[in-house]
Amino acid sequence: MACVGPHPAVADVRRAVREALSDLRPEALVMAACSGGADSLALAAAVGFVAPRMGLRAGLLSVDHQLQPGSAERAQQVVAQAAHLDLDPAEVLTVTVGTEGGPEAAAREARYAALAAAAERLQAPAILLGHTRDDQAETVLLGLARGSGLRSLSGMAARAGLYRRPFLDLPRSTTVAACRALGLAPWDDPHNEDPRYTRVRVRRNVLPVLEEELGPGVAEALARTARMAREDADALDEWADSAYQHCALSDIGGAITLAVKELETLPDAVRRRVLRRAAIAAGAPPGALSATHVLAVDRLVTRWRGQKAVDLPGGLTATRRYGTLILAISPHA
Amino acid sequence: MACVGPHPAVADVRRAVREALSDLRPEALVMAACSGGADSLALAAAVGFVAPRMGLRAGLLSVDHQLQPGSAERAQQVVAQAAHLDLDPAEVLTVTVGTEGGPEAAAREARYAALAAAAERLQAPAILLGHTRDDQAETVLLGLARGSGLRSLSGMAARAGLYRRPFLDLPRSTTVAACRALGLAPWDDPHNEDPRYTRVRVRRNVLPVLEEELGPGVAEALARTARMAREDADALDEWADSAYQHCALSDIGGAITLAVKELETLPDAVRRRVLRRAAIAAGAPPGALSATHVLAVDRLVTRWRGQKAVDLPGGLTATRRYGTLILAISPHA
Repeated sequence: MACVGPHPAVADVRRAVREALSDLRPEALVMAACSGGADSLALAAAVGFVAPRMGLRAGLLSVDHQLQPGSAERAQQVVAQAAHLDLDPAEVLTVTVGTEGGPEAAAREARYAALAAAAERLQAPAILLGHTRDDQAETVLLGLARGSGLRSLSGMAARAGLYRRPFLDLPRSTTVAACRALGLAPWDDPHNEDPRYTRVRVRRNVLPVLEEELGPGVAEALARTARMAREDADALDEWADSAYQHCALSDIGGAITLAVKELETLPDAVRRRVLRRAAIAAGAPPGALSATHVLAVDRLVTRWRGQKAVDLPGGLTATRRYGTLILAISPHA
Repeated sequence: MACVGPHPAVADVRRAVREALSDLRPEALVMAACSGGADSLALAAAVGFVAPRMGLRAGLLSVDHQLQPGSAERAQQVVAQAAHLDLDPAEVLTVTVGTEGGPEAAAREARYAALAAAAERLQAPAILLGHTRDDQAETVLLGLARGSGLRSLSGMAARAGLYRRPFLDLPRSTTVAACRALGLAPWDDPHNEDPRYTRVRVRRNVLPVLEEELGPGVAEALARTARMAREDADALDEWADSAYQHCALSDIGGAITLAVKELETLPDAVRRRVLRRAAIAAGAPPGALSATHVLAVDRLVTRWRGQKAVDLPGGLTATRRYGTLILAISPHA
């Protein structure tokens, strides 16, 4: 007897999409973001199949970044495929990519802004993105190399606002296999092979070495690390939020005053998060406020021996006085 | 005028040792654990120099693992160097390495047991270990590959019980330079070059690729990650401890009963830690209790739809009944 079910890879991507959509109201419109690559093409096909069977409407958005010759035609071709995948509406979103923060960050910024604007215009409560477990592993390694703590190890969220990433637990090979089984021809973005991008070097040179030296399953371990790191970071942020409310004595004209006695009862990890929040609330630019700055403020609490005020970015000063810690714009700034 | 201060690398290792010893009482005996390699030889030299100037006594311990021909002579030679480094007492600790958990784990187990026994016999309150920032980076990568969460990213503690690791913020190159400046000839353990050890492959093949593809400073970023992960894990454990006390209704004859209503108020990361604690308190072997087991129990709390009991290692069962979660040895086990 012939097997009549879908190919296992097709079943996997459909199941992942079904779970990601299970909480939406009937007739809600979900949009698949699709570049034409294997990940997002498999996503688009799964959304086109699954959504109508769940009583949902489904469409497609393809972003033209205008960074490569022929990118407009490419995006049009992706949109043309949408009709065969039961996706309607289907639109090209043309964006202009700036330069701030480097090419990858600028392209991402422009892409998400266009997707969010389209979702609002179309009144779509969800945009699905095709990031896979391999993308997640790459993101964790990039965060690890920054060494900036738990948040930078958390990778991408399975859900954040509008965005849902149903494939974060699936390997890229599953999306490739799903496309092949469905007779879909994905497009290989040359940017995905350009070694000037750090992420490309991580994919091509770093992850294979990790798999070879530490054994297979590294990508899975990294994705698992991301999930746990995100939960851990959320819990610590929750603690720090409530501790901050508890420690803050006053918040007058941008100056924040904290009770040292309360700060002293907190574990290091929570106290430092509270100090970071306080500095930002007092006006320090988050991007410029480093762990070293926070540690210097922390020593005013835990290693007090009458030291002088600590200078912080944004012309801010942290001073200890009579059992309080005061974060305020310096009069000299 | 000639420079009369010590070589910068020598100054660095001495400063690190001084900071690590600053809380000890006068006349306390500190022991440097020394294999004769660059890291621990630089450590021994720094301890011999710094400790007497701080009013402390200092000695040396060298473990003979009996795993290589000539290891006994090697350990004797290290002990013979101790006199020139002002370290007294100096002893060889001969151990027999078992096989449990693989060769690296078995050697570590035997080594730490012998060091702890010697410290007790000599009434030494501190043993110093020569692990560097590079060792720490390797440990974090090994933990990352396991993907078992925050604790496995925490690397080695700068202080844990008897043990102190003053060099966790120093690169290995500093210990090598310190030995050279002091005219000390370190011994290169052939095990440190044996690619059958995962740690050796991480050092030789993985870290250099990371440095090349992600930029220099990766080892430093990994060590920083370890420090933050340890603080974060400590804070979450503190929260989970107090939450466990709050949720536990009874603990009768090994059966643990938790209040579901209390569990529901906790963030995911804390609730799962509480469930893990409860399962272990009820008799589950910690090593056999996986994240998957804990997630299955968690679904009895967060996705309750009347599902049946969850089986756990150690013949344990988790059951939800009338607003409580009961973890107990199954009557069928």
